[in-house]
Amino acid sequence: MPTAQEAYEELAHRERERHLLASSAAVLSWDERTYMPSRGAALRADQLALLARLVHERLTDPRVGELLDILQDSDLARGDTPQAANIRAWRHDYRRAVRLPKKLVEELARATTLGQQAWQEARQRADFALFRPHLEKIVRLKREEAQALHEQGSLYDALLDEYEPGMTVEQLTRVLGELRRQLVPLLQHILASRRGCPQILQRHYPVDRQEEIGRQVATAIGFDFSAGRLDRTVHPFCSGIGPGDVRLTTRYHPRHFGQAFFGVLHEAGHGLYEQGLSAEAFGTPIGQACSLGIHESQSRLWENFVGRSRPFWEYFYPAVREAFPEALGTVALDEFLLAVNYVERSLIRVEADEVTYNLHILLRFELEQALLTQDLPVADLPAAWNHILYDLLELRPENDAAGCLQDIHWSAGLFGYFPTYTLGNLYAAQFMEKAHADIPSLKDHIRHGRFEPLLDWLREHIHRHGRRYLPGELCRRITGRELSAEPFLRYLRSKYAELYGLGHA
Amino acid sequence: MPTAQEAYEELAHRERERHLLASSAAVLSWDERTYMPSRGAALRADQLALLARLVHERLTDPRVGELLDILQDSDLARGDTPQAANIRAWRHDYRRAVRLPKKLVEELARATTLGQQAWQEARQRADFALFRPHLEKIVRLKREEAQALHEQGSLYDALLDEYEPGMTVEQLTRVLGELRRQLVPLLQHILASRRGCPQILQRHYPVDRQEEIGRQVATAIGFDFSAGRLDRTVHPFCSGIGPGDVRLTTRYHPRHFGQAFFGVLHEAGHGLYEQGLSAEAFGTPIGQACSLGIHESQSRLWENFVGRSRPFWEYFYPAVREAFPEALGTVALDEFLLAVNYVERSLIRVEADEVTYNLHILLRFELEQALLTQDLPVADLPAAWNHILYDLLELRPENDAAGCLQDIHWSAGLFGYFPTYTLGNLYAAQFMEKAHADIPSLKDHIRHGRFEPLLDWLREHIHRHGRRYLPGELCRRITGRELSAEPFLRYLRSKYAELYGLGHA
Repeated sequence: MPTAQEAYEELAHRERERHLLASSAAVLSWDERTYMPSRGAALRADQLALLARLVHERLTDPRVGELLDILQDSDLARGDTPQAANIRAWRHDYRRAVRLPKKLVEELARATTLGQQAWQEARQRADFALFRPHLEKIVRLKREEAQALHEQGSLYDALLDEYEPGMTVEQLTRVLGELRRQLVPLLQHILASRRGCPQILQRHYPVDRQEEIGRQVATAIGFDFSAGRLDRTVHPFCSGIGPGDVRLTTRYHPRHFGQAFFGVLHEAGHGLYEQGLSAEAFGTPIGQACSLGIHESQSRLWENFVGRSRPFWEYFYPAVREAFPEALGTVALDEFLLAVNYVERSLIRVEADEVTYNLHILLRFELEQALLTQDLPVADLPAAWNHILYDLLELRPENDAAGCLQDIHWSAGLFGYFPTYTLGNLYAAQFMEKAHADIPSLKDHIRHGRFEPLLDWLREHIHRHGRRYLPGELCRRITGRELSAEPFLRYLRSKYAELYGLGHA
Repeated sequence: MPTAQEAYEELAHRERERHLLASSAAVLSWDERTYMPSRGAALRADQLALLARLVHERLTDPRVGELLDILQDSDLARGDTPQAANIRAWRHDYRRAVRLPKKLVEELARATTLGQQAWQEARQRADFALFRPHLEKIVRLKREEAQALHEQGSLYDALLDEYEPGMTVEQLTRVLGELRRQLVPLLQHILASRRGCPQILQRHYPVDRQEEIGRQVATAIGFDFSAGRLDRTVHPFCSGIGPGDVRLTTRYHPRHFGQAFFGVLHEAGHGLYEQGLSAEAFGTPIGQACSLGIHESQSRLWENFVGRSRPFWEYFYPAVREAFPEALGTVALDEFLLAVNYVERSLIRVEADEVTYNLHILLRFELEQALLTQDLPVADLPAAWNHILYDLLELRPENDAAGCLQDIHWSAGLFGYFPTYTLGNLYAAQFMEKAHADIPSLKDHIRHGRFEPLLDWLREHIHRHGRRYLPGELCRRITGRELSAEPFLRYLRSKYAELYGLGHA
């Protein structure tokens, strides 16, 4: 029998290999979405399926269980050390993986492949009936999955834990409930005083110059292009392939400045997190991102908290105006700032501004819980969607394509995923309050294009730790408090008070 | 014990998986040479090393030997069937692989990694002494490898067999000896009557238009861009990732029309072969290329036999002249044709024309045999190189960077590889003679831009067979004759007689 130290090393070695395979698959996935010729799709699916199987076999190898048993009661598993954190995370991942029956995993893979195809067609035709039987099956299988994974708390917790380890539906309901109570009246208050003209951003913005400006802003905030790329794709993403290789993607619309600009900032925020992970720890949990919520906090922080702030545009607006003289030659900074912060009730989540965005998430959070607990039959989803949407945003979609069919997530079996978007906003606000407290001249730094102090702070407090702490613990360690909606609400109130010259709501 | 049919299916399944892994590695290698950020190199090396190990483990898995033993004496292994061909090729590959001691494989990997680094520096500094100890070690290890692989014939045969299965040093010496005897006087004859001005091709050729023309010519000859790509790289290559995904690369020089144009035609020739392999047979030998020599025959055929012919330029010159009016506006077709077929003695293999190119190969063939058989100590390589070079081309390199240090091959352990380049020329000539006989109006088709008849002929006689026949057997089946230097020599005589208005030499 190996000693604890030997067991640790064997496990670390195995996990490193598993992540080398996973990162190879990440290159293939990136290629599939950027450069792969269309007729290569079938081969690519076979390659990725094989790599996924090899990764899963390594994850669930009984030898991993044996090694974890040796480690569990050893000194290595105790205390606040990187080793103990790795052992906890390995245990977490292994237990989840071995609890899922192989048959269920395969059924889910099939159901979500077919589900996504059906969803695509249903959305195109705005016909929920085409998708309904698929969603019924997927919900049933996800419920089975949750039952298999379930240890304590609610079934929803078991799914949430995949994306946001340690988060519970109880905490989430409390925090998001508070957010909802205050956000709906705050939105009314903001809309009542709204100013600015968003059409400024829909003038002609030549795509090649958008690309140039995108590279410029990503470089400015610290994204290292010798260890990364920026390419075009249809549905933008950031792929952290591994140390020295982090790839951003975006799409350009010649009459839409914001889509690519804030898209690049958003993906570069994810990319900075990936570039800030420990290269030495590659393949072990402390070299990996903490959670989806923490990941999203980094993208939202750069996209919104920095990228839509006055100090940022005091620095960056001259470059943008110079790049697009036809569109912005006569537009003053204040006018531009109002445009990039324009708030409006809208139907589509991915096009929503930073105030209303969270209401779209609250809607989905409520509905996916109801679907899983069987309080809501799938057949009633469209009506329930439209009902809650009206409550939150006073809008009714013309059809289900602009309603409950707009997102791919449920068709792909992603339940418990949506809340991480809003968690990202809340974490970002709470982190930024602390960053401003720790770096009193932060606004001034940003106003002068000095982004290193903020990036260094994020690296020090968040990036370098990887999965060393659970997200809730990380939040407490950094800010001294539990996650709360208050910092985000304070941020919005203060921002819009300043923008519109309001008294605080 | 499985039946022969079961054994065949198990082996086919295993081999298909092995090739899925190898083709995943091919995507990673392509990415490494096109788009990977520079700091991703260390991770990529680890990913590729792991995938190579997994591929090798599958190749040498004792279960493969068991299955082959079952198959060997079965009916499936008999007769001219795809199954029998696959079994023969599997046996060939397995026996080679298991004969190599793991320690030797690892030593060679290390020695060639260090060797390539040392070679790069030695070439840069034109200092053979820096490379000499590495080459000594590599030659020693390759000799060990040949001894381990050796079954019959010479040690050199054992290495040759990796690239050109079934070819022997005896046959090669006969064919290349004949080529040498006739080519040296033919070259003198050609040079004595030479006409034309190659500087035409060194005018200003804007790179974006070169890229456009490259795409156009690849499309014209039948390369399917919905199942392939064309990208930029430093050292051009073609990567046949698998069915539906074949990738060409090239480099552009703004003052060098031929480099990219003939480079693209060359790589597209390889690419057409890959696109012509059987997609259903992917992962089995009959879905793979026959040999390096046959592969090279396809690239040379399109690059030279088609791409430097008068009928081709009668069709394509108007498009090229239109793309580069500044460079070619006043250049007549005949003048252009003389320029793209200009022959001259030169020092660098990769820049050589289609006549002198083969003399560069004869030089290397002679030297690498002498190195392996210990007739030539590594220390004497530069002098021997310069001596034979003078015999063949009447030139002396200024230093070893332009001499025996110019190619990467030996530093990478590639011995027995060089001859396949000239084999490609010889096969191409022999195939083209037959194609012209089978398609009497072939020249006329090409003159009118109809490349399908030739491509269909190549697909029918070469591509679709994959490794069904050994290269020598394939050559006999197609042309009714053994491989010979005569068709190539006939081709050159007739071509230059026509170009320069000569009597036949």
